[in-house]
Amino acid sequence: MTIAVIKDVLGGRYAEGSTVTVRGWVRTRRDSKAGISFINVHDGSCFDAVQAVVPSNLPNYSNEVTKLTTGCAVIITGTIAASAGQGQAFEIQATTVEVVGWVEDPDTYPMAPKRHSMEYLREFAHLRPRTNITGAVTRVRHCLAQAVHRFFHERGFYWISTPIITTSDAEGAGELFRVSTLDLMNLPLTDEGKVNFKEDFFGKEAFLTVSGQLNVETYACALSNVYTFGPTFRAENSNTSRHLAEFWMIEPEVAFADLEDVAKLAEDMLKYVFNAVLTERADDMAFFAERIDKEAITRLQHVIDNNFVHMDYTDAVEILKNCGKEFTYPVEWGTDLQSEHERYLAEEHVGAPVILKNYPRDIKAFYMRQNADGKTVAAMDVLAPGIGEIIGGSAREERLDLLDKRLEEMKLPKEEYSWYRDLRRYGTVPHAGFGLGFERLVAYVTGVQNIRDVIPFPRSPKNAEF
Amino acid sequence: MTIAVIKDVLGGRYAEGSTVTVRGWVRTRRDSKAGISFINVHDGSCFDAVQAVVPSNLPNYSNEVTKLTTGCAVIITGTIAASAGQGQAFEIQATTVEVVGWVEDPDTYPMAPKRHSMEYLREFAHLRPRTNITGAVTRVRHCLAQAVHRFFHERGFYWISTPIITTSDAEGAGELFRVSTLDLMNLPLTDEGKVNFKEDFFGKEAFLTVSGQLNVETYACALSNVYTFGPTFRAENSNTSRHLAEFWMIEPEVAFADLEDVAKLAEDMLKYVFNAVLTERADDMAFFAERIDKEAITRLQHVIDNNFVHMDYTDAVEILKNCGKEFTYPVEWGTDLQSEHERYLAEEHVGAPVILKNYPRDIKAFYMRQNADGKTVAAMDVLAPGIGEIIGGSAREERLDLLDKRLEEMKLPKEEYSWYRDLRRYGTVPHAGFGLGFERLVAYVTGVQNIRDVIPFPRSPKNAEF
Repeated sequence: MTIAVIKDVLGGRYAEGSTVTVRGWVRTRRDSKAGISFINVHDGSCFDAVQAVVPSNLPNYSNEVTKLTTGCAVIITGTIAASAGQGQAFEIQATTVEVVGWVEDPDTYPMAPKRHSMEYLREFAHLRPRTNITGAVTRVRHCLAQAVHRFFHERGFYWISTPIITTSDAEGAGELFRVSTLDLMNLPLTDEGKVNFKEDFFGKEAFLTVSGQLNVETYACALSNVYTFGPTFRAENSNTSRHLAEFWMIEPEVAFADLEDVAKLAEDMLKYVFNAVLTERADDMAFFAERIDKEAITRLQHVIDNNFVHMDYTDAVEILKNCGKEFTYPVEWGTDLQSEHERYLAEEHVGAPVILKNYPRDIKAFYMRQNADGKTVAAMDVLAPGIGEIIGGSAREERLDLLDKRLEEMKLPKEEYSWYRDLRRYGTVPHAGFGLGFERLVAYVTGVQNIRDVIPFPRSPKNAEF
Repeated sequence: MTIAVIKDVLGGRYAEGSTVTVRGWVRTRRDSKAGISFINVHDGSCFDAVQAVVPSNLPNYSNEVTKLTTGCAVIITGTIAASAGQGQAFEIQATTVEVVGWVEDPDTYPMAPKRHSMEYLREFAHLRPRTNITGAVTRVRHCLAQAVHRFFHERGFYWISTPIITTSDAEGAGELFRVSTLDLMNLPLTDEGKVNFKEDFFGKEAFLTVSGQLNVETYACALSNVYTFGPTFRAENSNTSRHLAEFWMIEPEVAFADLEDVAKLAEDMLKYVFNAVLTERADDMAFFAERIDKEAITRLQHVIDNNFVHMDYTDAVEILKNCGKEFTYPVEWGTDLQSEHERYLAEEHVGAPVILKNYPRDIKAFYMRQNADGKTVAAMDVLAPGIGEIIGGSAREERLDLLDKRLEEMKLPKEEYSWYRDLRRYGTVPHAGFGLGFERLVAYVTGVQNIRDVIPFPRSPKNAEF
């Protein structure tokens, strides 16, 4: 018995006339008047289902085959034949159809074969991988993740798993989830009446990480080229289509690199992974272009084909002030750009991805490298047409005196950063890196509007089901 | 200026006489009486450092070069020359040595070039990647992670990121970390005086996941072949060399598969990743074999070269009872095997990896598929010589009536598992999978005794520093 995956059947791996067995789930069933049934079977190996042609002389034809509904699990054996049908080269002439699992009460099956809203599908996050769209998102997500790992591996980067549970707040940004095993109904208190975290599991107040950057810098300052790819967390009460409480981040960090080096790295990485997805997931991308966003493929191809345009923040502010366009938020040097500004620059002014560089020091994190002008830092954002900011990065301040000055100015406790400061005390090197939110990448590639639909089980305020 | 990574210099990528620039950190410096210095420079790209031969006529020779100490960051340009020295084919005849970062007070530099204990290095987790051993562990860990992703990708598996924050306790095992944003000094209470988790971020009591299995089953029952590779958590108060509070797990899940199928998958996977590490990280493995565990290479080769031996739990109990060996813990049918039993079976009785199968139902989780004998379940453990259990897996109970019976017997709340039960109501299929603790794999491969030394920033009771 040759067990075949449907991708191989449709891809012509098996000669006409050979016998194969496919295993999967029924997408649709259609019975012809001539007394045969057409069953579309799906196994997740590619976008398309394969058509099995089932003759009425099978012993279980009338009592089972004609009762199959969407979602039933089947094992079908038959011979490969050229298909006269719609666009597919091969089909299966079934000789046996084994029903492995029925659908209980097909009329109430939540994934019945009709168009469901994305909101509805989100309520059935455990069943939505059975739909075309979530199946396609899953394969594209997988392809992108593999391509990210491959890209860095080929360039000599090592994957570093930075800690998820941490006792430091890397960005000083607040909005942290506390991790604890304390009994809430019986909290240990200090003499001053505060919670005594010495009694907690880690002997200290602990949180979920917001970024692996500071930790991964310790590895860059020893092994040169490293990256993280892991979950990060924000306890932000943001109920938007761009925010998740739990999301995956990719954070490369490069020793002896400056901002230009990592800007180039970001451009190379995006082109590499977009190429991978257009090549390896052409079937799923065709679906996204047809059903979700007609620019899905052309947008990626456009990024691949064009050089990213580098622009100084200061120049961008001038462009925005003089472009004659009305923005909701005013633009002034020293303020952060809003999504409308970023999109204007990338989409209208340049018409290609833009790397904005050298932001005002006062709106950026303490660790960013200070430029000679005394006003800006070597930070960058990569702005992509159609989405805005997709990557943020910077050179890191490797000069201890300047770093300490920033910590003081920002009133951050120096002793909390003693290990981070050690990197500057012992063989310090210029280094730089960036962060890419993986779900934003998947949303950008697929054209799916809401980030909650590109991660298997989204977590957001008031929602951590399943 | 040709920037070269040291791996390429030592590997002969550059012809003798060509000029290259290397960037990295000083391992050692030796000054000869003839007035030249030998500086070993390391950049993490491979195990070895490259030797730079620095003549005394460089302008900064006496005021900088002769003051270099371990850990200083340097950029050295010079010509490639055949090396007369110890075992390396090439060295660099330096023409310039730029000191990028000094080591502040070399006498107190924590990573001074001497043998440090593993316990000492753990206290300097931010600096230990600079040591030979942590560098080698990091490269091997990276190689194993890449090989795992590649293995599953080549076989048509999709990577699924199952949630880290969850409101269900997958295994019903307790030992959970709570995730919360509630103000501990001002806890909201219900009318009954209990903590009101409706007011918490997720509107429910939430925890860190102990396993992605139940979640990933939902994807296997739609896309056939899937796997997780992500962090998992146990709030166990175990201060042992084999336990971490935060560790990475790999959990493949396969539709239409039985226990034999995933036993074969586990064997194939281990052989694949061991092959990868012996091929791609021969330098680091040679170090482990020389300095940490002389069996490091032969142990892996032995696993690759031998078929795994399958054995029933029931037969194993008979063997253990009759082997004449004195164990600390007695063996009786119906009890879990201890590490001493597992190691006897793999190391002494068989002398190869053993796959123990069909364990007593009452010592296993609710989701394991019940065998026809009414006493055992289709569970397996892979026992490896030298470490004991390295993989645990099972077929999953796909029959709703039998699953429900187990939930009742184990007093687990059926409504909590409604989404898991849905997989059995709608097109259920036999499926199976296993879990592999990634850090145990890295420890097994490297021979490093304590699992805290194979993860960058280990988390354990009273310890979440950095």
